[in-house]
Amino acid sequence: MRTDLFMIPGPVKEKDLADKTLVMIDVLRASTTICYALNSGARAVIPVEEPGEATDMRTKIGPENSLLGGERDGVKIENFNLGNSPLEYTPEKVADKTIILTTSNGTRGYVRGAHSRLIITAGLVNISRVAGRVAREGRNLAVLCAGDVGHFSIEDTLCGGMLIHKLLTEENIDMKLNDAASLALLLYRSNSRSLKETIAQGEHGRFLREIGFGDDVALAAESDSIPVLPVYKDSRIVLEEKMSIE
Amino acid sequence: MRTDLFMIPGPVKEKDLADKTLVMIDVLRASTTICYALNSGARAVIPVEEPGEATDMRTKIGPENSLLGGERDGVKIENFNLGNSPLEYTPEKVADKTIILTTSNGTRGYVRGAHSRLIITAGLVNISRVAGRVAREGRNLAVLCAGDVGHFSIEDTLCGGMLIHKLLTEENIDMKLNDAASLALLLYRSNSRSLKETIAQGEHGRFLREIGFGDDVALAAESDSIPVLPVYKDSRIVLEEKMSIE
Repeated sequence: MRTDLFMIPGPVKEKDLADKTLVMIDVLRASTTICYALNSGARAVIPVEEPGEATDMRTKIGPENSLLGGERDGVKIENFNLGNSPLEYTPEKVADKTIILTTSNGTRGYVRGAHSRLIITAGLVNISRVAGRVAREGRNLAVLCAGDVGHFSIEDTLCGGMLIHKLLTEENIDMKLNDAASLALLLYRSNSRSLKETIAQGEHGRFLREIGFGDDVALAAESDSIPVLPVYKDSRIVLEEKMSIE
Repeated sequence: MRTDLFMIPGPVKEKDLADKTLVMIDVLRASTTICYALNSGARAVIPVEEPGEATDMRTKIGPENSLLGGERDGVKIENFNLGNSPLEYTPEKVADKTIILTTSNGTRGYVRGAHSRLIITAGLVNISRVAGRVAREGRNLAVLCAGDVGHFSIEDTLCGGMLIHKLLTEENIDMKLNDAASLALLLYRSNSRSLKETIAQGEHGRFLREIGFGDDVALAAESDSIPVLPVYKDSRIVLEEKMSIE
């Protein structure tokens, strides 16, 4: 399985992702929030780039069944229903709702997967489930790390490395790694016993803790705590098992 | 010393580099070629972005004292005097000449250092000399890896990690690293006994070997083989000791 990891999305083009399984990673916090929202019964998450798009989308799909979620500079966008803290996405708030989500990093980039064959949202919270699905799909793999406003962020690359490690050791996949994927694997293996500390001490982890989101940082580092499989199709992220039912 | 390493130049802005010492790294091959050219007696290397700019520049500064060097897709540009192989830059060819150099990655980005205080070209071939100079300067440090056409390349980040390792262990500098700098340090320390193999097996190393430049890959990995100190000032890269004489 050829595996190309991209540590930041900037230079990635649609053709780099075509015909592959594409795994989208934004550990702090979009991926984690999406897993929590769907696990709490949200019908779907629609990732959009800008707040204005989000409000237009809500008007279009009907405000009664939808909620606006997201952040800028880490904090909830004015007049939105929800921020980007996974713990806000409780069953009481989000069950049967469609969440329109716009965040600084992790909700961008899904559109680049226009020619990908399967697009999965991954965080540490669902990493083993993702590894199993990637293995079952058996296609070449692209791992797109959201990064932090265009720059490398350690937690996303660490998560990509953990995915590759699991594919190699638990799924017994024979993999051909690009340089960045090799580095991600090294990063994971060097920090596998201190994931929480490494993430908390990374730049984005420190920033979030400073502005009061320490709990989010801690729960985003809980491997396999929310073992859902969110897939992106027709501009929406849904649980794969629900997609096949509908 | 605050140290920010950037694994690819894309998202880097002038302000990220302002008032700092800026180290520019393109191990394969611009940094290495620049070291070889200046060590062979070239008067200066002028890095430019495009071949057209290079020919215009040659007309401007006078063709009798200058040579055009550079590559696209790894090979010498048509009608240029020299390609981007360090070994081409012999004293016979380049002594007292000004080299106008345009390469795919490593000659871009120098202009972003407009507000940097000192700009040094670094490869593995001059790494200890660079570390000593960075330490003596004592300013905050930015390390800009050229990457490979917008993507991460392992040899540049490895070189950045070696620089940080030397600053920590040989120059005894107290450093505050960004996430990418920490990762670069990990990459170096994990591969310090196999630098040559790691570089030869990286994506760009493999590519260059496939198109016949295996010797370039090998010599670029020879640490401290060409211990010169190229600095960029007034749009030219010169040896620092010559700059102070002129």
